[in-house]
Amino acid sequence: MAFDPEGLRPILARVKATPASPHPDEWMAAACPHASVEQRFQLRAMLAETPEPAFERDSSRIPALQKLLAKLKLAALLVPRSDEHQGEYIVARAERLRWLTGFSGSAGFAVVLRKAAALFVDGRYTLQAPAETDAAVIECRHFRKPPAIEWLPAKLRKGDRVGYDPRITALSEAERWRAALAKVGAELVALDANPIDQIWIDQPGDPFASVHSQPLAFAGEASEDKRKRLGAEIAARGAAATVLNQLDSIAWILNVRGGDTPSTPLVQSFLVLAADGHATWFVDRQKLTAGLVQQLGNTVTIRPIEAFAEGLADLAGKTVSIEPDTATAWIEARLAAAGATVVRGADPTVLPKARKNAAELAGTRKAHARDGAAMVRFLTWFDAEALGLSELQVMAKLEEIRGEDPMYRGSSFTTIAGCGPNGAIVHYRASEQTARPVETGTFFLLDSGGQYADGTTDITRTIPVGRVPRELKRHFTLVLKGHIAVATARFPKGTGGVAIDAFARRNLWAHGLDFDHGTGHGVGSYLGVHEGPARLSPLSQVPLEPGMILSNEPGYYKTGSHGIRIENLLVVREASFEGFLDFEAITFCPIDRRAIEVGLLDPAERAWIDAYHARVLKVLAKQLDGAALAWLKRMTKPL
Amino acid sequence: MAFDPEGLRPILARVKATPASPHPDEWMAAACPHASVEQRFQLRAMLAETPEPAFERDSSRIPALQKLLAKLKLAALLVPRSDEHQGEYIVARAERLRWLTGFSGSAGFAVVLRKAAALFVDGRYTLQAPAETDAAVIECRHFRKPPAIEWLPAKLRKGDRVGYDPRITALSEAERWRAALAKVGAELVALDANPIDQIWIDQPGDPFASVHSQPLAFAGEASEDKRKRLGAEIAARGAAATVLNQLDSIAWILNVRGGDTPSTPLVQSFLVLAADGHATWFVDRQKLTAGLVQQLGNTVTIRPIEAFAEGLADLAGKTVSIEPDTATAWIEARLAAAGATVVRGADPTVLPKARKNAAELAGTRKAHARDGAAMVRFLTWFDAEALGLSELQVMAKLEEIRGEDPMYRGSSFTTIAGCGPNGAIVHYRASEQTARPVETGTFFLLDSGGQYADGTTDITRTIPVGRVPRELKRHFTLVLKGHIAVATARFPKGTGGVAIDAFARRNLWAHGLDFDHGTGHGVGSYLGVHEGPARLSPLSQVPLEPGMILSNEPGYYKTGSHGIRIENLLVVREASFEGFLDFEAITFCPIDRRAIEVGLLDPAERAWIDAYHARVLKVLAKQLDGAALAWLKRMTKPL
Repeated sequence: MAFDPEGLRPILARVKATPASPHPDEWMAAACPHASVEQRFQLRAMLAETPEPAFERDSSRIPALQKLLAKLKLAALLVPRSDEHQGEYIVARAERLRWLTGFSGSAGFAVVLRKAAALFVDGRYTLQAPAETDAAVIECRHFRKPPAIEWLPAKLRKGDRVGYDPRITALSEAERWRAALAKVGAELVALDANPIDQIWIDQPGDPFASVHSQPLAFAGEASEDKRKRLGAEIAARGAAATVLNQLDSIAWILNVRGGDTPSTPLVQSFLVLAADGHATWFVDRQKLTAGLVQQLGNTVTIRPIEAFAEGLADLAGKTVSIEPDTATAWIEARLAAAGATVVRGADPTVLPKARKNAAELAGTRKAHARDGAAMVRFLTWFDAEALGLSELQVMAKLEEIRGEDPMYRGSSFTTIAGCGPNGAIVHYRASEQTARPVETGTFFLLDSGGQYADGTTDITRTIPVGRVPRELKRHFTLVLKGHIAVATARFPKGTGGVAIDAFARRNLWAHGLDFDHGTGHGVGSYLGVHEGPARLSPLSQVPLEPGMILSNEPGYYKTGSHGIRIENLLVVREASFEGFLDFEAITFCPIDRRAIEVGLLDPAERAWIDAYHARVLKVLAKQLDGAALAWLKRMTKPL
Repeated sequence: MAFDPEGLRPILARVKATPASPHPDEWMAAACPHASVEQRFQLRAMLAETPEPAFERDSSRIPALQKLLAKLKLAALLVPRSDEHQGEYIVARAERLRWLTGFSGSAGFAVVLRKAAALFVDGRYTLQAPAETDAAVIECRHFRKPPAIEWLPAKLRKGDRVGYDPRITALSEAERWRAALAKVGAELVALDANPIDQIWIDQPGDPFASVHSQPLAFAGEASEDKRKRLGAEIAARGAAATVLNQLDSIAWILNVRGGDTPSTPLVQSFLVLAADGHATWFVDRQKLTAGLVQQLGNTVTIRPIEAFAEGLADLAGKTVSIEPDTATAWIEARLAAAGATVVRGADPTVLPKARKNAAELAGTRKAHARDGAAMVRFLTWFDAEALGLSELQVMAKLEEIRGEDPMYRGSSFTTIAGCGPNGAIVHYRASEQTARPVETGTFFLLDSGGQYADGTTDITRTIPVGRVPRELKRHFTLVLKGHIAVATARFPKGTGGVAIDAFARRNLWAHGLDFDHGTGHGVGSYLGVHEGPARLSPLSQVPLEPGMILSNEPGYYKTGSHGIRIENLLVVREASFEGFLDFEAITFCPIDRRAIEVGLLDPAERAWIDAYHARVLKVLAKQLDGAALAWLKRMTKPL
C-alpha cells in the first residue's frame, strides 16, 4: 500500500477531534500501520498544523439559532449535553451545548426559546457557568429551581412546538418531556436534523482512534461466548435482538478497546445483538487495527456506522428489546417505523460486565499493584519537592510518573488536585486561574486514576503538608473510620449499597458531620471508571455481587478550609460464611499516617491499618528502590 | 331513662363480637351509663349466656359458595382477609376468610373457583394453614410461589368473570387485579353484596365498645385545630374534602378512642373531612359516651354509619382526595358515580399522627415508666417462680401484673412468649398444643406491650433461665451490640430507616448471622402498636422526623434452639448538632446482664449499658419496693 499523506488529511482532522492519547502515534496503528519512521515524522508535523476544534465563546450563535427556530416554526429547542451513545463522556462533534453557550462543564442542559435562553447547571457550576456564558443572550439557572422540564412549560402557549434531537435523547427522557409539554398543550417535535449543526460551520468530524482487540488474557471470556450467553437471555425475553448504543457495553461484548472518548477506551459505534449471538457492528472500519476483523470471526458482521439506520430497518417484523433509559428515542422510532415490535428491557451486558471474571480481576490487581508503585514514587517526590509548586505542576508530575508504565493508556478521569480550600470543592478541576500552590499546614487532596490495558484504577489520598492543625487530623481520622467500616463490612447476599454507605457515615454523623456524595461507584475493567449498576449510596438498593469492583471513598469538606477523601477500590467476594459477602481492597498505597489522630481509632481499626500497610509494603516493595522504598517502609510501619 | 334489659339484647350480641376489654363493663358506659349495681350484675349474666361468634371448621361452606358462584355466573371469587377500614386488625363480622376456610392466621388470601379453591399464606403459616383447613375443599399455597394474582389468571379463560367485594378491597389492589385479569381477557366484577355473607347465616354483628374522648392532656392538640390544619392541606391540593376509612386516622383526628378492634382502641366508623376543617363522622351514635357529642362541637356532624354511601353522594360535583392504598374501591366508585372528581393523595393524618407532640410524648414517657415497673415486678416473679410453668401461664401472669394499673386498657398485641426453640419462631403464638414449660439452660423470649390511656408500649426482653451456654450469650451480645448501635445513632435530617437498620445488623453480619425482619416499626400514641409511615427496615427511605416513636428490636433466631430479641422504643429528637437527629430511649427495664458476654462489648457499649441501667433505676425505683426493688438494684448495677 503506497503511502499517501495527503489522503490522510481528513483523518488528521478527526484525530484532532479525538482525546489526546499518551501514545500520540496510536492512530497510525490503524490508519497507516506500515508507515516508516520518516513518514511518521512527516505525519506528526502535518497533525501539529491541523487546527483543533475551537470552542471560543461567540455571542452571535444563540441569536442565529433563534432566527432558525422561527424559520422551523419552533417555539423552543432542547439542547442537552449528550451524544448518540448516552454515556458519561461525549465525542467532540456532540459538544453542541459548549459551542452554543460557551459553557464547558461536564453536565448541563439548555433551553433556547425564540426570545430567551436558559442554561441549567448543578451546584458545581453555579460560578463557572455565568463566567463562561454571556448573560446578554443566555440566563444561568440552578437545575432544580425549578427543573427545565417545569420551567419551559410555564413559558409556552397551547399549540407551541418544541424541537428536540431524538438521536441524542434517551427514549425515557423524551417521554418525560412529551408528557410535561402535553400538560400545557404544547408538542414535542422530533427533528430530522439538529438545528445547531446547520449553523455550526466548523463542527468537528467523528473521532479517529485505533481500535484494538482486548486480549483474552485480560477479558477472560471470548466475545462469541459472551454473545451466545446474552443472546439466550434476549431469547428468553421473547425478543429476536437487542440494540446497544452504550459504548462500554459494545466494547465489553466485542472485547475491543479504542480511544474515541476522553478517559475511556471506547469505540464510537452501534451494535445489534441477535438472539443466536450474532452481532452486527456499525463502525468506521478504517479505525480497526490489522487482524481485528479476523479475530472477531464470522459471527460479527461489520457495517459502516452510516448504515445503522438501515440496520434498524432490517429488524422489520422482529421483536427487539431496548433499554429505555439509554437507547435513544431515534432508535425506538426507527424500529417502530420499520415495523419491529419494541419491548423494553435492561441492557443485558450491564450485570455481567459489572461482575468481573477471574481474568479481569487478576488483571486489575496487577494494574493496581503497578499504579500503587507509581503513587509511591509520586508521593516520595511530593514530600521532597512539591512545596510551593502549583496544583497543575503536581498533576503533571503524577501523569509523568504514571506514563512510565508501558501499559498506561491515560488517566481514567481528570485528576482532582486541590490544596487547602480547593480540596473542599468536591468536583474541583484546577486551572491557571484557580490553582493554589502547595502550602504547609493544610491538606492536599489528590483524586486520580489510570487506564491500563489490564485494568482501571481510581485512588484518592489526602496528604498533610507539614504539620496540620489538630482539627484537620480529627476530621481525617473520622473519614478514615468510615473508610475502614466499609472495608471491613461483611453482609448477606442481596444487600444493596445503601446499607454499606451508612457504615461510611456513622462516625462522621456522630460528630454532626457528613459528605454530600455517595460513598462509592462501580469501576470497569479497562473501561469506564464509573460503571453501573451497583453503587454505595444512600439510594442504591442494587444488590452487590461477587466480582463487582466498587470505590470506597468517604470524605469530609469544610468550605473555605480543607477537603478530605480516602479512596481505595474494593472487589466484592464470597465471605467465609455461607451466603455472605465481603470486600478485598485492591488499591495499594499508604494512607498517610501523619494525618491520623491515633487515639481516635479503636484497636480493631488500628489493626486494620497495620494489616493494610503490611500488605501494601509486601505488594509494592519489590517494585521500588532508593528513596521511594525508604519512604514506603517509613509510611507502612505499624501505628 | 327506664332500664330495659331485653332492649339491650341486640347490643349484647354485638358486645360478644367485640374484643374482650380488661374492664368487662366498659360497653355499659355508653349503652346504659345509669345502670345500678344490680342491673349491671343482671346484664353481665345475660352477656355470659349470649353466644360468641363461632368459627368451627365446616367443610360444606366452600362447596356452598361454589354453587352460589355458578348462580352468579362468576368463575371465581377473591376472599381477602380485610374489612372496610384496611387496617391491621379487622372486625369479627369481616372474618370471612376464617369462617369460610377455618384458617385463623392474621394474614391470608383465598381464591375460590367453581371447582377448586386455594389459600395463600406466608412462611409463618405454612404448617398452621394445612392443619386448620380441609385439603378436600381447599389447597394451601405459599403466597409467593406464585402469588395469587399470577396463579388465578393462569386458570381462567377469556371472558371469565371474577367477583370481588369493593367494600373491603383497597383501590390500588383492585386496580392491580383488574390489570392482571385483563391480560387473559378475564373481567374483575365488583359485587353489590359479598356472596359469603349470603351463606353465613350467623354472621356476627358490628362490634359494640364505648367511645370515649381522648383528653387534651394526652392528645396535646384539639381536634378542631387538627382539622383546620389538615383541611388547609387538602385545600392546597385543590380538593374540597378527603374521605378517611382508616380507623387510627379517624381516632387521631377526632381525639376519640374506642375498642372495636383487637389490641387497638379504635372506633368502627368513616369520616369526611372538608377543606374548612368540618368533619362528618359516620358512626353508631349509641356507642358514644355522655358528653362526647358536645365535646366534638358543632364542627363535627354525626351521622349513622349506614348513611356513609349517602354521605359520599353528597360530595357530588366536588373534588375529593383519597389515598389509593387505603381507601377502598367502593369509596372511589361511589364518589365517581356521584359525579365527584377523585384525586389521589396521601391520607393527610399519617405524618402529623406519627410526629408526636409534646403532650403525647409526655404521656407515653409516663406510660412507659409504669409499664417498666410492671415489667420489673413480672421479671422478679419470673426469676423466683416461673421454672416449670408453661408459656401460657407466664403470659397470664404478665397480663395480671399489667392489669393492676388503672390506666391499662389491654395488651397492644398478642404477647409472644417462647421458651427455647419456640423463641426462634419469629411470630410465635403460644397455644395449649405448642406451649413449652420454662426450662433452664436456654432463653425465654418475651415480646409484649400495653395500651394505656396515655400511651402505647412494646417491649421485648430475652431472659436467660439458669445458666445458658456460651454460644447463647455470644448471640445475645451480638444482638445487643446492634441494639446499642441503633440507640446511639446520630444522623442528618432526611435520613431514612434503611441506614439505621444497617447499624443494627453490622455486628451480626460480621459473624455470618442476620435476622429476617425489620429492625423497627412506628408506634402510635394510645393507638396502633404498628404505625406508619417510617420504619427501620432494609427498604424504608421515609425520612425519620422529630417526635416519631420507633421500636429498636434487632434479633437472632436459631431454628430448633433459641431466639433472641432486645426491644426498646425510641423517640426521634433534635440532636445537639444543627440539622442532626438522634434517639431517646423511653422503655425502662433492665437488659438482662446475665446474658451478656461482657468481653465482646467495647468500652462505649459498656458505658451505654451502664448509663441506660442507671436511668432505668432512677425512673423505676420510686415505683417499687421489696423484692422487686432489690431485683432492680441487682440488675442495674454497672457491668
